[in-house]
Amino acid sequence: MTDFVAALQALLGPSHCLVDAADMAPWLTDWRGRYSGRALAVVRPQDTAQVAEVVRLCRAAGVAIVPQGGNTGLCGGATPLMDGRCIVLNVSRLRRVREVDPANNTLTIEAGATLAEAQAAAAAVDRLFPLSLASEGSCEVGGVISTNAGGVQVLRYGNTRDLVLGLEVVLPSGEVWSGLRGLRKDNTGYDLKHLFIGAEGTLGIVTAATLKLFPRPRATATAWLAVETPAKAVELLGRLRELAGDRVSAFELVGRPALELVLQHIGGVRDPLPASHPWYVLAEMTDSGEQAALEALLEDALARAQLEGCLLDGVVAASGQQAADLWRLRENVSEAQKREGFSIKHDISVPVSAIPEFLARAGQALENCYPGIRIVAFGHVGDGNLHYNQSQPVREENAAFIARTAEVGRVVHDIVHSLHGSISAEHGIGQLKRDLLVRYKSPVEMAMMQGVKALFDPGGIMNPGKLL
Amino acid sequence: MTDFVAALQALLGPSHCLVDAADMAPWLTDWRGRYSGRALAVVRPQDTAQVAEVVRLCRAAGVAIVPQGGNTGLCGGATPLMDGRCIVLNVSRLRRVREVDPANNTLTIEAGATLAEAQAAAAAVDRLFPLSLASEGSCEVGGVISTNAGGVQVLRYGNTRDLVLGLEVVLPSGEVWSGLRGLRKDNTGYDLKHLFIGAEGTLGIVTAATLKLFPRPRATATAWLAVETPAKAVELLGRLRELAGDRVSAFELVGRPALELVLQHIGGVRDPLPASHPWYVLAEMTDSGEQAALEALLEDALARAQLEGCLLDGVVAASGQQAADLWRLRENVSEAQKREGFSIKHDISVPVSAIPEFLARAGQALENCYPGIRIVAFGHVGDGNLHYNQSQPVREENAAFIARTAEVGRVVHDIVHSLHGSISAEHGIGQLKRDLLVRYKSPVEMAMMQGVKALFDPGGIMNPGKLL
Repeated sequence: MTDFVAALQALLGPSHCLVDAADMAPWLTDWRGRYSGRALAVVRPQDTAQVAEVVRLCRAAGVAIVPQGGNTGLCGGATPLMDGRCIVLNVSRLRRVREVDPANNTLTIEAGATLAEAQAAAAAVDRLFPLSLASEGSCEVGGVISTNAGGVQVLRYGNTRDLVLGLEVVLPSGEVWSGLRGLRKDNTGYDLKHLFIGAEGTLGIVTAATLKLFPRPRATATAWLAVETPAKAVELLGRLRELAGDRVSAFELVGRPALELVLQHIGGVRDPLPASHPWYVLAEMTDSGEQAALEALLEDALARAQLEGCLLDGVVAASGQQAADLWRLRENVSEAQKREGFSIKHDISVPVSAIPEFLARAGQALENCYPGIRIVAFGHVGDGNLHYNQSQPVREENAAFIARTAEVGRVVHDIVHSLHGSISAEHGIGQLKRDLLVRYKSPVEMAMMQGVKALFDPGGIMNPGKLL
Repeated sequence: MTDFVAALQALLGPSHCLVDAADMAPWLTDWRGRYSGRALAVVRPQDTAQVAEVVRLCRAAGVAIVPQGGNTGLCGGATPLMDGRCIVLNVSRLRRVREVDPANNTLTIEAGATLAEAQAAAAAVDRLFPLSLASEGSCEVGGVISTNAGGVQVLRYGNTRDLVLGLEVVLPSGEVWSGLRGLRKDNTGYDLKHLFIGAEGTLGIVTAATLKLFPRPRATATAWLAVETPAKAVELLGRLRELAGDRVSAFELVGRPALELVLQHIGGVRDPLPASHPWYVLAEMTDSGEQAALEALLEDALARAQLEGCLLDGVVAASGQQAADLWRLRENVSEAQKREGFSIKHDISVPVSAIPEFLARAGQALENCYPGIRIVAFGHVGDGNLHYNQSQPVREENAAFIARTAEVGRVVHDIVHSLHGSISAEHGIGQLKRDLLVRYKSPVEMAMMQGVKALFDPGGIMNPGKLL
């Protein structure tokens, strides 16, 4: 291994090939501190050619590679295992904007650029790159592609997968696949880019991508709405989309317990409505037209929905500041729950039509097993995706509740599975859900995935112990 | 082989296992009569279980399978080869609507339903399935998925690939992959459905799909526009999208020579504009709002574009009938060119921004090699996709021109390739472009594709001689 590390250092220089434990530490633990691992080195190549050279050295030495971007993942996918027979390959130095083509509505950018930098490169030519996440200031393009990140604009613009036209990938063989196409139509064989998107670095290392851009909306209208039940929220979503079509760009559900945690733990926020209601929706519309026209459309649609009985109360933001205040309520749910104490978290999806049944069945099943358990449900209901979290019954011991994590998860995931849902809607599998994957995927599908893995990475050097 | 055929007949009954040459004939030739082949039998199973049983019989006997839907493809992908060691597996009897879920905006439908039936199933619940092709009355869901069909609404809604949430596939092993998910978000491993979409039946047989539905537009505004150059058309597209966003749902370019062929050969059509212009655009916007408001938006946008110099003249349809008349001009270009005589056809794409350069370079190169060659260019310029066809110089012999097909194609495709374009934007590879694929794909990508093929179909029984 001394020769191997020496070769890495000769290639990259000592400042970009870290081997000292203290130097490596920030890259060996995930940002939430849930996963830690060991590595022979943390390398930071400067371009695709260096990435390929690193891969060839690793392949020759039989050393595994953990690809890493902004290290903001939630499932331990970018953290090495404890065996230490690997390197962390951090792509953060590959951050060039290679090309912006406003007439083609494309941006070609390297894997280490942050999502915010990609958004800014689009905005600089008056275009929108719509992917938007809480971590956008630090997560990187290669990471969001490798995890197929979602976020708050999926309803209108899709997941990361839907926003990628082409990829450049360093394969486990050390070869470079130059698939950076900016084409809306290309029917020349198997669409290989979709294998690498969401593969969590197990099939190769994404080094650059050609991304889709969109016209920039000129108007945004935001509302905080109260509904009686999740079923009414789904009905309201359908009604708004009938009346406003694709303008509906976000539709986020927030349960009263989630709002209460925010009101309790986050400073400078207030309940936007005078009375308390069981469920809320943060809805947003965007459009290319006039601000006043969009606001009128939203208000008219809400008035109709209220007449039809799917809306209890609501407020439309009168300014950008008011809209930002409404978004703060939604965006601080996770932080508020963290301050409240430990919680068991689930990132699930079901068909949108099954959201009410899921909430009813899971809520009842959990109450039966764990009387007093507190359910904090919120998320992207327009995509059928809920962050469905549990806090301990008020008087229960923390440790006892933590010990129940797997049991609670089993109850939730079994119901998700029976509703043809997903146990990981947007965060991925990583180290966290490998065992669950085997439980819920069919043997036919697992065999296909294992076959693909063996085909692309016969030596098993790409991010072992993750996903599969 | 007698035992094999007997087993097929026992399984399916004689009326759904055709072996007589005259009975089989309609399924052994493509609809344009360009490809013909031979087969041991044409089988028409009634459900997924029968498809799987047929595959197992074929696998055991070492007989190849040519999957076939509506048999409307343009590249010979659904026609058997001449060696006759295969069966044609036609899926047309699998045509059930399995589920329509308007709250989830999904439709689950079997592979043999026609595209028009899928559209109708969506319309019945006041939703839109946006895929729209000339052959929609006879092409089938399995076929449009296996060829990743495009059409006239790709600009707004994407290709077939973008409209598929889940698939059921009979694998070459005879196993059934039940991947019929109706989820907008599911990050649980490799997204295998994208391998089968556009694979032209070389990896398995699609038997059913869960498709995305959309709110139905309430308003449609259509315009026939004259522009000086293709560059002005691209500029106009950008301007319309800035002003109207995703409402721009079609943007079709038609060159003056293409329009002239339509005016000459198709009855009951007329030039919508008083003067002759070098290029035309058929633009359409759709929206969920009021008809009058959308028309006003389109007219305002066009007035601005004319002031800015990217528009020469134009007319907005004042009725549905007028809009249909404008669409007839666009939709009859292929038919008019067919009546004019033989033509050499190309289905290419380049980045939208490279459309003007492509047309200039290819036009000049062809004129240099073949003085007097007539270029008929039209198509989905909003997607960078042109149908770029050549008719013979007026006085030249037909046979001499036909003999030049490969040479002309080489000139066109080399320029497409140099502009990072695709030699098959929406029609696929089939038998027609297998040799071209090897010329223009990188060895790295060809090796990955061949690896995927060998992984899924180690016996090579799925649609041999197509695509790869």
